[in-house]
Amino acid sequence: MDHALGLARRGLGNTWPNPAVGCVIVKDGRVVGRGWTQPGGRPHAEVRALAQAGPAARGATAYVTLEPCSHHGKTPPCAEALIAAGIATVVSAMTDPDPRVSGRGHAMLRAAGITVIEGIRETQARAQQQGFLMREAQGRPMLTLKLATSFDGRIATASGESRWITGPEARHHVHALRLAHDAVMVGGGTARADRPGLNVRGFGVVRQPVRVVVSGQPLPDLPVESATHGPLWQVSGDVADVMAQLGARGLTRVFCEGGGILAASLLRAGLVDQLVGYTAGVAIGGDGRAAIGPIGLQHLADAGRFHLLETRRIGGDLFHRWQRA
Amino acid sequence: MDHALGLARRGLGNTWPNPAVGCVIVKDGRVVGRGWTQPGGRPHAEVRALAQAGPAARGATAYVTLEPCSHHGKTPPCAEALIAAGIATVVSAMTDPDPRVSGRGHAMLRAAGITVIEGIRETQARAQQQGFLMREAQGRPMLTLKLATSFDGRIATASGESRWITGPEARHHVHALRLAHDAVMVGGGTARADRPGLNVRGFGVVRQPVRVVVSGQPLPDLPVESATHGPLWQVSGDVADVMAQLGARGLTRVFCEGGGILAASLLRAGLVDQLVGYTAGVAIGGDGRAAIGPIGLQHLADAGRFHLLETRRIGGDLFHRWQRA
Repeated sequence: MDHALGLARRGLGNTWPNPAVGCVIVKDGRVVGRGWTQPGGRPHAEVRALAQAGPAARGATAYVTLEPCSHHGKTPPCAEALIAAGIATVVSAMTDPDPRVSGRGHAMLRAAGITVIEGIRETQARAQQQGFLMREAQGRPMLTLKLATSFDGRIATASGESRWITGPEARHHVHALRLAHDAVMVGGGTARADRPGLNVRGFGVVRQPVRVVVSGQPLPDLPVESATHGPLWQVSGDVADVMAQLGARGLTRVFCEGGGILAASLLRAGLVDQLVGYTAGVAIGGDGRAAIGPIGLQHLADAGRFHLLETRRIGGDLFHRWQRA
Repeated sequence: MDHALGLARRGLGNTWPNPAVGCVIVKDGRVVGRGWTQPGGRPHAEVRALAQAGPAARGATAYVTLEPCSHHGKTPPCAEALIAAGIATVVSAMTDPDPRVSGRGHAMLRAAGITVIEGIRETQARAQQQGFLMREAQGRPMLTLKLATSFDGRIATASGESRWITGPEARHHVHALRLAHDAVMVGGGTARADRPGLNVRGFGVVRQPVRVVVSGQPLPDLPVESATHGPLWQVSGDVADVMAQLGARGLTRVFCEGGGILAASLLRAGLVDQLVGYTAGVAIGGDGRAAIGPIGLQHLADAGRFHLLETRRIGGDLFHRWQRA
């Protein structure tokens, strides 16, 4: 299952509106098929793994990070494909929250005489599926807020200079995180001031994330959609409404890169699920530009708290990742 | 030598105006004596280790983290004591920069027929002696600046609430760092607003660090010197002058805990040697109080850079430590 979770991770940011799933087929102690959800969400992981396994799938065990689907959507149900291939055992990490599946996939397999073992590595699978689960449960995507700042939380000097606070390794890592999200989001002020690329660079040919600009005002000329730039969506409204709009359009994982006013609105509304920080070994001082705008917090007890998930060095900078408590 | 460096570390913050030294005496593969500089700087490490070794010192090897002293100060020279005890070999990490010693200790040992091996673990020893070396070379103590902030670099809400941003484990760790410094320093504004204890709590009976308040204005009533509070020194002038005054009074390691104006002055003057950060998983926003006051930095290229030495979790907070590049 750990191997299947590793395969599923490859699809993160790449499979929306579908979840990113991994599948490993094992026969007599050997891996005979591996698959993960392909860009755009199809083919599904199981179909890919079964195709690779071929006749070896008969009598084999399939490890899947999410319950196989049972409904005819744009693809035939994976549960049927597993049955047809003669799989003997399915080990599944979690039930699919999609109301069209939600236990029916497991039931369909059992009805066909397949042994089904559920809930293996469920905690890890649910963490990986956080975006898909949130869109199913709350109608909005998971939101990651990125801050790349000086030691004292500044993103630019008083004169507006911001290139570069963090180093090239940290900036490359940001592109990897963009790649693992469905969309990159900024506020209108940042779009107008910085005209950011909001695309993934340095990773070869990839499916570019959607570019989301939150603004009710006209936008500057930004690159049109192409092989190097994802679709450009302008959305407006309060942040809860914006997140609902993005969920309705199918996004599961959104990466917000500022600016300070949008970041403050998202934090105030409790919409930030993960925080990622890149902290540089430099102090800019209180006259520099703050990473987060005014929140209006009166009491510390009212502030949302985050748990530290990981911390490590990236190049010369400090990387840290937090999950909402 | 690693053992001797570990012993020396026990003295950090405790031995000023003397350096914190460690000594291990080994005879036939067994440790027969261990010593480290005692509170206030006397007795020296070698004297303690020789006393423990007794007659076993004859023909033994002594590992010392700093060249043994050769001059008659408040104690007789350690080099003489090593000779008198019949030590056969001295392994020394580094030369003492004190002009009264500076190679004479090693020379005195060699003249007495002792084999002297120098420069073992010199890098580690010099890092540990950073405060003593700086006072000898530059006339000022090493300065560590502490920032305990929210994720976005704030030390209080707009309404002034600051208790508590970081957790109890981080606050306990701050006391450990106070203990490893000769003095704890704050600006006058912080002294007047917070009336901070500036003492070490939670570590039993310890030698309390000097309390330094940088202010030309009258101070509030602060606790008088006692078993639980170190001497209280009020100093004023520009920060370079303040640091020179502290060096002249014998301090080797100073721990600055704010406030923002003093921190900004120290950073602007390039006087911060180490930065330690405690970052909590909470965002306060741009209307909160900044940890560092205005620095007036125009260009990022002009900012002093720091190298990340370590990062880890302490309780629920992120701890990170940086050394001036």
